Amino acid sequence: MKKISTMVIRRLPRYFRYLTDLKDAGVERISSTELAEKMNVTASQIRQDFNCFGGFGQQGYGYNVQQLHKAIADIMGLSQNYKLVIIGAGNLGHALANYAGFSRRGFHVVGMFDVQPDIVGTTTGGITIGHIDDLEAFCKREKPEIAVLTVPKEVALEVAERLPALGIKGVWNFSYMELRMPKGIYVENVHLSASLMTLSQHITADKKEEIK
Amino acid sequence: MKKISTMVIRRLPRYFRYLTDLKDAGVERISSTELAEKMNVTASQIRQDFNCFGGFGQQGYGYNVQQLHKAIADIMGLSQNYKLVIIGAGNLGHALANYAGFSRRGFHVVGMFDVQPDIVGTTTGGITIGHIDDLEAFCKREKPEIAVLTVPKEVALEVAERLPALGIKGVWNFSYMELRMPKGIYVENVHLSASLMTLSQHITADKKEEIK
Repeated sequence: MKKISTMVIRRLPRYFRYLTDLKDAGVERISSTELAEKMNVTASQIRQDFNCFGGFGQQGYGYNVQQLHKAIADIMGLSQNYKLVIIGAGNLGHALANYAGFSRRGFHVVGMFDVQPDIVGTTTGGITIGHIDDLEAFCKREKPEIAVLTVPKEVALEVAERLPALGIKGVWNFSYMELRMPKGIYVENVHLSASLMTLSQHITADKKEEIK
Repeated sequence: MKKISTMVIRRLPRYFRYLTDLKDAGVERISSTELAEKMNVTASQIRQDFNCFGGFGQQGYGYNVQQLHKAIADIMGLSQNYKLVIIGAGNLGHALANYAGFSRRGFHVVGMFDVQPDIVGTTTGGITIGHIDDLEAFCKREKPEIAVLTVPKEVALEVAERLPALGIKGVWNFSYMELRMPKGIYVENVHLSASLMTLSQHITADKKEEIK
């Protein structure tokens, strides 16, 4: 299989979502033209992208939805389960721990840690929140692959430094801090403030257009 | 001013973050080389990007931090305030309503709505959660510019259809649904599941590398 470009990788979750809906609706085959229309992209982009991971399309017959769905799930690593440990049990940590959609996809929150005495020991989403001092022992035992970082900016670097020794393979970083991890540990950033600012930028740009 | 490309726009929040830190630390000038090193990008990209919105650099003297910070804030629409209304008062809605960082940047949550009888009437982050039937009257009175959509996928489209009539200019969409809005309403998607799947994709790809 060819190496799949980052741009295609970024588009996979969206393909996966549409194909899941089609599969759930009992659709067996779909043409690139039909799918393109649904997804509001060009049919040629779809054909090009799907070619990257083996095709599954037959001229005039369209794509086999089930096969394509499985191929994308495999590439996305969704054919296996992952253990997540949430570090930082504030509102966002709670929201993520209670989101059922993740476990449906094979992402299971196995632990949650904080330092606040009034939070440690409480239970959310079936998880009892532990003290961060116990993080090392917990990871040795449970071997989570993914650390979810929902701590305040001020302590993010300090917490992040402890992650490589824990056997973590990926960091889902919600802190405002940029993290540099050793090779082999992938960081996926969710910068909510940056996303919100993109919105204000567009609103302001539109307003300026109006004034002109 | 030239039209700024989407790629540059996407990079603005990161520049803004670094410049805020520099400004807070009392730094008055910085060269593109120094900034490039801090941000782990090339100096030529910084020069090219900053040129898009007027420069503020002097050969051999570097950039004026304060001026550059203000210019970026202006483009990002951060020199004004925005009213946010959160629709969907689940865990994620609560997390967003209680995040102090947003109001520091001029984003103020003014209302929050839901349909659940046990949630409506409760208070979070200083906001009393209203019933979604009162959304229209509320928006007429308060005129929020941004709607934050944190409702389940099943009702996202139904709720979204009500937004254009409310005078909303931007939708911050956390629902798994893709929204098509009329011209003049910008949608910024935060697909948390997609972000998490990017992480699993990388972990799996690394594992396959190891096996080879």
